[in-house]
Amino acid sequence: MLYMIGLGLAHESDITVRGLAAVKKCKRVYLEAYTSILMSADKSKLEEFYGREVILADREMVESESDKILENADVDDVAFLVVGDVFGATTHTDLVIRARDLGIPVESIHNASVMNAVGACGLQLYNFGQAVSIVFFTEDWRPDSFYNKVMENRKIGLHTLLLLDIKVKEPNIKEMMRGRIVYEPPRYMSVATCCQQLLEIEEKRKEEAYTPETPCISVSRLGSPNQSFKAATLKQLAEYDAGEPLHSVVMLGRQVHDLELDYLLAFADDKDAYRKAVIADQEYFKPPPPPPAPQDIISSDEE
Amino acid sequence: MLYMIGLGLAHESDITVRGLAAVKKCKRVYLEAYTSILMSADKSKLEEFYGREVILADREMVESESDKILENADVDDVAFLVVGDVFGATTHTDLVIRARDLGIPVESIHNASVMNAVGACGLQLYNFGQAVSIVFFTEDWRPDSFYNKVMENRKIGLHTLLLLDIKVKEPNIKEMMRGRIVYEPPRYMSVATCCQQLLEIEEKRKEEAYTPETPCISVSRLGSPNQSFKAATLKQLAEYDAGEPLHSVVMLGRQVHDLELDYLLAFADDKDAYRKAVIADQEYFKPPPPPPAPQDIISSDEE
Repeated sequence: MLYMIGLGLAHESDITVRGLAAVKKCKRVYLEAYTSILMSADKSKLEEFYGREVILADREMVESESDKILENADVDDVAFLVVGDVFGATTHTDLVIRARDLGIPVESIHNASVMNAVGACGLQLYNFGQAVSIVFFTEDWRPDSFYNKVMENRKIGLHTLLLLDIKVKEPNIKEMMRGRIVYEPPRYMSVATCCQQLLEIEEKRKEEAYTPETPCISVSRLGSPNQSFKAATLKQLAEYDAGEPLHSVVMLGRQVHDLELDYLLAFADDKDAYRKAVIADQEYFKPPPPPPAPQDIISSDEE
Repeated sequence: MLYMIGLGLAHESDITVRGLAAVKKCKRVYLEAYTSILMSADKSKLEEFYGREVILADREMVESESDKILENADVDDVAFLVVGDVFGATTHTDLVIRARDLGIPVESIHNASVMNAVGACGLQLYNFGQAVSIVFFTEDWRPDSFYNKVMENRKIGLHTLLLLDIKVKEPNIKEMMRGRIVYEPPRYMSVATCCQQLLEIEEKRKEEAYTPETPCISVSRLGSPNQSFKAATLKQLAEYDAGEPLHSVVMLGRQVHDLELDYLLAFADDKDAYRKAVIADQEYFKPPPPPPAPQDIISSDEE
């Protein structure tokens, strides 16, 4: 059996009771270690908690050597641990397809991920549109495909969850050209970097998918003991130090209910200013007024 | 401390290790018992698992008697258990606001919910738009506000998660008029009922937000041992018996990648027909072709 097990967001004890029981009986335990990290537990902490050796699975292993992961999984129990929930990345779905093709039974044990836990910021999940990924800009690669998606969401009044890039086990290019493999230290995108990149693209595109005054929420260390939220405009967050990783950002859409706003205001330094920013933002992509009722049409014909 | 604890989807053991530890030390344990149910565990099973009495909190208690829930929570530990993740409904956010106003510290322990676990059907979560709720139609109340939202999602190529109504502890109206409170047996919307309601509204509105041939996936008992998926058209699912509750339905949008389709086909009775339905559906809301490149404009000017 291949157990696909979500680990949740922060602690080793965020695994479910059922997930832990499955890990404990597995012959091999892999931890997917490149799309996210468990904030408050490293490999050795997990090994101690599980009473099991944990094998770190980097991108290369998952994408090119999945046969190794699936070896004998038709007779032995193998666990594949994913930070957050199980199906957060296409590579995980791909692993299940490969297992299925090999006749290996698969059981998924779900957990929280940022996709649902972000509700902790106070915005209702059903008012979120598509989530988008924000990747680190480089000198010659500054992709802006997220811009159209944010625009699509905001046109229909929905919030956008921005998932921030992490770079783990990236080889140093200069060293590689010298024939040596040296890994860069891990990098986790900050709230400020994300918001600066967004401002740069708005500056370039000028289509007003959003403005420097658009209200946002920074979501930091979600699910961990020192989780924190900051409600501020995009421009303000571009200069905000949100502290230790991991971070996400939510850009608000027009659909903000009073209850939601109440909740958010507790995270704003200047509550009045934030409330005004939210109200001002509701003018963007405002739906046209409803068509006149039939009697109005008749009376205007009479004029 | 008020602990807001997500229970996950099906088993008593779907609670996290950290969540279970919190429950065990709480003086009072409430289970929110009206927006969803834990499929494979009832109150007594939970009580045995926790070693704690569990108080069922119905809508009235949560919305009107929240003071009772929060009583002494500034000095005692109180747990409020929610099926799925913590912030699935506005009433939960509301409870946290009330606690905050009373100076009661709150800790959230997240878990899986249908909002992220639906990724198990094989569609990538970042291609989902806003989720919509489908409520039971009655003779004189057949709300169709979901229709515009599905349209909005499908116009930009996104999938829609349809959350199906459940009715728990609904009073019998006739008995109520006789001055007696008798509760109806619980009702959980089936996949077929949901799809029939969708077809009825399309028949009425005729704006082609979707058609009887639109590809969908029924998602049944997600996260439980007998979880199942069925990939079929809306019309086919309107006659499909998906078995025991709980159910959800996903209506596909245009953005279906090959890897996703591969995954879905394993759930289709007639793979060829489903593939054709997906391809045909991609003609709906197709984006206009990109504007001609500058040289094309010049050459057409020359004609």
